[in-house]
Amino acid sequence: METITLNPIGKIFTPHNNISDMPIQAIAADGVKGHIELLPEFEPGLKDLDGFSHITLLYHFHKADGFELVTTPFLDTAQHGVFATRAPKRPNAIGISTVRLTGIENNIIHIEQVDMLNGSPLIDIKPFHPQFDHRENVQSGWLEKSKNSTPNQLRSDDRFR
Amino acid sequence: METITLNPIGKIFTPHNNISDMPIQAIAADGVKGHIELLPEFEPGLKDLDGFSHITLLYHFHKADGFELVTTPFLDTAQHGVFATRAPKRPNAIGISTVRLTGIENNIIHIEQVDMLNGSPLIDIKPFHPQFDHRENVQSGWLEKSKNSTPNQLRSDDRFR
Repeated sequence: METITLNPIGKIFTPHNNISDMPIQAIAADGVKGHIELLPEFEPGLKDLDGFSHITLLYHFHKADGFELVTTPFLDTAQHGVFATRAPKRPNAIGISTVRLTGIENNIIHIEQVDMLNGSPLIDIKPFHPQFDHRENVQSGWLEKSKNSTPNQLRSDDRFR
Repeated sequence: METITLNPIGKIFTPHNNISDMPIQAIAADGVKGHIELLPEFEPGLKDLDGFSHITLLYHFHKADGFELVTTPFLDTAQHGVFATRAPKRPNAIGISTVRLTGIENNIIHIEQVDMLNGSPLIDIKPFHPQFDHRENVQSGWLEKSKNSTPNQLRSDDRFR
């Protein structure tokens, strides 16, 4: 299959400069502020985005080096397949985070609940809409049974450095 | 910024061979079955994925040709910035869909609620977990006010061909 080439549309700035001691999910990053610098040529694409309280960001795990198909994620002591985890070292190192949108000034987008590394290259912004993005009657396998049931308290360690 | 190169990890097979007359979201594709053929070398990464009822797929909008920063999406007659829509013609043509997982046989993954084109190159699989992926107290701008409040009935037309 053909390779796919992406050109980042901007950069995400956050307080997280190290891959350890970060919130492991946006839900663990309440009140943690950051901002996006969108490349100016893409600014027209933001029209009406300010009506949304939450946006889903796609970004590059730019510090992830290689991948492991079986991995021990932060929330457990057992090994799981990488596709059953949100671990950053994956065959295609793309992250998804839904963050709170707090303001837009020209090409600068202010966000909260940021759980990604400072300087992460931004690939896409999609509006979050519960009717599209929520699911009911969900089973979540090992994540439901994981030893740590309060991931909002958890921080990363350096295992994915 | 540096370009990012992705190598697809498999392919998604669906009944949707044409970019028109497709469900516009997974929620509009109840009971629509498809399957993923994961490249065999990635099969170990599926360990424990079978415990999840839903998975989030990242894939390439491989038939999207170019992009428009301001666009008229299927759910409205007004123009909106592309980043305030889920339209497929975007600067980086990556789609996200959360689908129902119905079975895994070796490197074949059976799914339902498929809303992507047949043959879409698969980039990543992430487990869906309400604690990570749901958001409360959400405002969804034009999508809440859109003329069509039943997107589960809607099908695409050929405007993004």
